[in-house]
Amino acid sequence: MSSFKTLEWAGDAVLLLDQRKLPAEEVMLACRSAEETARAIENMVVRGAPAIGVCAAMGLALGAKQIKSNDSAAFAKSFETLCARMARTRPTAVNLFWAIDRMKARFAREEKRPVSEIQNALEEEALAIHAEDIAVCRALGRVGAEVVPDGARILTHCNAGALATGGYGTALGVVRAAVEAGKRVHVISSETRPFLQGARLTVWELQKDKIPVTLITDSMAGHLMQRGEIDLVIVGADRIAANGDVANKIGTYTHAVLARTHDLPFYVAAPLSTIDLRTPTGAGIPIESRDPEEVTRAGASRIAPEGTRALHPAFDVTPAAYVSGIITEMGLARSPLADSIRDLFRDPGSK
Amino acid sequence: MSSFKTLEWAGDAVLLLDQRKLPAEEVMLACRSAEETARAIENMVVRGAPAIGVCAAMGLALGAKQIKSNDSAAFAKSFETLCARMARTRPTAVNLFWAIDRMKARFAREEKRPVSEIQNALEEEALAIHAEDIAVCRALGRVGAEVVPDGARILTHCNAGALATGGYGTALGVVRAAVEAGKRVHVISSETRPFLQGARLTVWELQKDKIPVTLITDSMAGHLMQRGEIDLVIVGADRIAANGDVANKIGTYTHAVLARTHDLPFYVAAPLSTIDLRTPTGAGIPIESRDPEEVTRAGASRIAPEGTRALHPAFDVTPAAYVSGIITEMGLARSPLADSIRDLFRDPGSK
Repeated sequence: MSSFKTLEWAGDAVLLLDQRKLPAEEVMLACRSAEETARAIENMVVRGAPAIGVCAAMGLALGAKQIKSNDSAAFAKSFETLCARMARTRPTAVNLFWAIDRMKARFAREEKRPVSEIQNALEEEALAIHAEDIAVCRALGRVGAEVVPDGARILTHCNAGALATGGYGTALGVVRAAVEAGKRVHVISSETRPFLQGARLTVWELQKDKIPVTLITDSMAGHLMQRGEIDLVIVGADRIAANGDVANKIGTYTHAVLARTHDLPFYVAAPLSTIDLRTPTGAGIPIESRDPEEVTRAGASRIAPEGTRALHPAFDVTPAAYVSGIITEMGLARSPLADSIRDLFRDPGSK
Repeated sequence: MSSFKTLEWAGDAVLLLDQRKLPAEEVMLACRSAEETARAIENMVVRGAPAIGVCAAMGLALGAKQIKSNDSAAFAKSFETLCARMARTRPTAVNLFWAIDRMKARFAREEKRPVSEIQNALEEEALAIHAEDIAVCRALGRVGAEVVPDGARILTHCNAGALATGGYGTALGVVRAAVEAGKRVHVISSETRPFLQGARLTVWELQKDKIPVTLITDSMAGHLMQRGEIDLVIVGADRIAANGDVANKIGTYTHAVLARTHDLPFYVAAPLSTIDLRTPTGAGIPIESRDPEEVTRAGASRIAPEGTRALHPAFDVTPAAYVSGIITEMGLARSPLADSIRDLFRDPGSK
């Protein structure tokens, strides 16, 4: 496990390590309502597809607890409103919708019981989602560790670590599992402009856990691959389509193209909850456009002239053909990914 | 021409637009000795291969003027020391060495004359290098404008503009010439971490001259190409080997790989003085490693934790096979580049 807590259930609040303030400050932010939790997701206090899912579930459990009515119909209506609000926070990461659907399904199973029992059940469900996330990341870590050679220099992008999940990580879960298995690894973290999750979060997280890491700008990965200084790429995902196309942080596609050009393996580590069987291909994944102001700034500094026109697509889509394998808790999906993905869901016992 | 001055000869000083302070402040810095001029090059007050060449020539003219001795042998020795100092400023851009060699050659031609006449000749040579740089950029701009389609969306990296040259630009010289020829163009400027020449300088320069420009992070170019939103790439160069391998700002190679993957033309715009016939291939080009601190900061902000290990290769090498053409003042060199380059030097009248 990581040596810090990304998010925590406090009964009357969702506690979030404020990732906007890392690495300068380590502050836990208390969200005291579903609305405050939704805003924390929108404002990237917490980010990373699995962490967003866990956080949304906790936010719904908190909101459900605060519904004053004991009338079943009124409670159902209020809970539905909370779910709709939570679904409007961020469009790309599918774990958000997956977690909301799970909370809705639990509600549907408990609907006939008294309101207080429904509230307890929803709290229980959110805590289960959190615990499962950690177990799932540990499991996919073990699967992924097998493809990591001893001594590997692993390029990762953005932060797919404990900070992006309930507490172990996807891409960095594989790294942690490889380290736990006694392998020597060295992580190359691309800084991940504009929000700098690589520089601010991945470096911080790996330093905390004493895993060797070197920071580069996003523009340096090609140069290092050309010089033979990277052995493989492992990234997380915000949504994976049924055919294996992968939406992840902007810049991921470029790393995939570079890996292909240099004959390096390119792995995606993600729980099954990130795979969206209802979206056939990457073309159907909505790509969030964030404020271009984030591109004209870096940290606290304004870097471009006043009046600069900028673009800010927050994600890109890597076609399945560029993906060597998808590392999941149920095993490694290999090419042809569409078939492997179908098998993972059909036969959850297989590896 | 651009609507601002990058560098200027003031008789008793070399005046440089301080590019470290752009876009927030427009300040001319006066270098009052060869040593001050050398430090300004080292500290990136001025950058860009052709501009470094012009600035170094002016710095040597200034230093020569300030040599007190009227004794020919003593003067020669002092001038040689100045040249050696200037050559130690930055290793990759070959225009620096080219300009120093030109100043040395002029000195050799004038060596027998009185010191004051040598000093005047060196001043004249520096001014000629400046004037020629502008003429050469205008000429290569006209050559390059022919490969720019009307309505083109042109990706450029770093700043290869008026700010990187005597005042017209190489890659942006092509853009200026296309605009002067009545073509509509839109420049996509990648921000160019870590020093942010794209965000700070290219956007500033094009805004000044009312040429449409959109800022992206370095990590977004692949995504835009994938969506068909870039038509061609034009970059400058710091040194081109005899076989056509191109050293340019870190991140250039990645754009070249992406352009190849998306079947887009990738052009390099550079004067013949950037082509180093004495370096057979890119493997022989020294790549400057700059302070890793520049990677752990963005603008004035520290972005990575204390104790972060970072890499900072300032340049990369794009193999000739990725280059669609080299746009020079003597014409367009096309594949096979080694032969075309030889022809450009052999027959300076041909296009």
